[in-house]
Amino acid sequence: MRYELYYWPGIQGRGEFVRLALEEAAADYVDVARGDGGENAMLTLLRGDAVVRPPFAPPFLKAGRRIIGQTANILLFLGPRHRLTPGDEAGRLWTHQLQLTIADLVAEVHDTHHPIASSLYYEDQRPEATRRAADLRARRLPKYLGYFERILARHSDGAGYLAGRRLTYVDLSLFQAVEGLRYAFPNAMAALEPRLSATMRLCARVRERPRIAAYLASSRRLPFSEEGIFRHYPELDPGKSRTR
Amino acid sequence: MRYELYYWPGIQGRGEFVRLALEEAAADYVDVARGDGGENAMLTLLRGDAVVRPPFAPPFLKAGRRIIGQTANILLFLGPRHRLTPGDEAGRLWTHQLQLTIADLVAEVHDTHHPIASSLYYEDQRPEATRRAADLRARRLPKYLGYFERILARHSDGAGYLAGRRLTYVDLSLFQAVEGLRYAFPNAMAALEPRLSATMRLCARVRERPRIAAYLASSRRLPFSEEGIFRHYPELDPGKSRTR
Repeated sequence: MRYELYYWPGIQGRGEFVRLALEEAAADYVDVARGDGGENAMLTLLRGDAVVRPPFAPPFLKAGRRIIGQTANILLFLGPRHRLTPGDEAGRLWTHQLQLTIADLVAEVHDTHHPIASSLYYEDQRPEATRRAADLRARRLPKYLGYFERILARHSDGAGYLAGRRLTYVDLSLFQAVEGLRYAFPNAMAALEPRLSATMRLCARVRERPRIAAYLASSRRLPFSEEGIFRHYPELDPGKSRTR
Repeated sequence: MRYELYYWPGIQGRGEFVRLALEEAAADYVDVARGDGGENAMLTLLRGDAVVRPPFAPPFLKAGRRIIGQTANILLFLGPRHRLTPGDEAGRLWTHQLQLTIADLVAEVHDTHHPIASSLYYEDQRPEATRRAADLRARRLPKYLGYFERILARHSDGAGYLAGRRLTYVDLSLFQAVEGLRYAFPNAMAALEPRLSATMRLCARVRERPRIAAYLASSRRLPFSEEGIFRHYPELDPGKSRTR
């Protein structure tokens, strides 16, 4: 069975967390909205008139006749099918719990450039974005990334993965979040990274996995950009000389 | 086994979604942080030095030796144990997908009064809150609530529940979200409710379930307040005469 992934074409966005899992699993999938007429097909499914269980928003995954929405829920579905989650229920819930925490982080990162409304341009909410991004850099990033670091450093059985002795989908997602943060907030991340050594080791290992490395080098991997969730606006990530 | 629920005392917050499920299930549980020394016990677990799988934030649930965090993940755990989710995997994922969509809505509602930083007071982000709340009222609430209404009206097998022919935890959560929105945004909700008849029917049915009715009438049910997620600030919900 070939999976159909539906997500906005042109950006990594939340779809990328699903893509990384599909790529690591060497799963057969097509990125529908990037093909001819694919975006219209996605919008038709989203309107949901003919769909019994319509998704609220992209990304969603079509698996046979089933349509599964919400990024973390798609990974919950894919995990046991592709050995990307622990075999026991407690381990699966833990992996999912961490994934939901990454989802919270991603939503907060999105809101640094859209603190008022997704329906407005960044340029229409710039002063608010400046305030919100300052809080993300000063408080929220250290809290989130410190949390994952603590788990990796203390509680990972020495294997260096977040949930047990093998790689799971949440390791891929933490890699993606860190990559995005490095793109969007290079100065803030440069200041934090010395305290994130276990996280950086995990990210390096993910990047070197053969299927992930091949994917990152392929045209299937879209670049980060100022259309996505992780956006680099220099004014939201001032360098040392500009911080007070 | 007695469950231990850990959440900030004094507010409904995200803990309430778990409480409603525990109450409907007539589960044996204690609301730890509302008892003597309970908040300190919660904070100790949160610091996580002695916890192999520490939660990022409340609420979390202790079930025997396991600690489970993230509201939606706790419900994912409780659902099959207390017949609050469908018996088949597809139904369970659909229920969870809807729960994650409610979690997104709840986060957006929180950010109407804290659009810049959770670490600041509402009073320190009031102009931004006014802008963000206007967008919630005009665009986001109709989108979210219209989505759930469409599912209930078209796709619920006529049973009037979100996920199949029986009540699930996500029905309880939608009830809680609507109750909170009615408290926080009475004017906006009064304008929307005529288009939400299936949702209002579901909420009435939830409210009348014997265990839920008993819970709502008990001292265990905390009131909504301006310390929680759903806050009523009149300036964020202007009446007809004040809208342009």
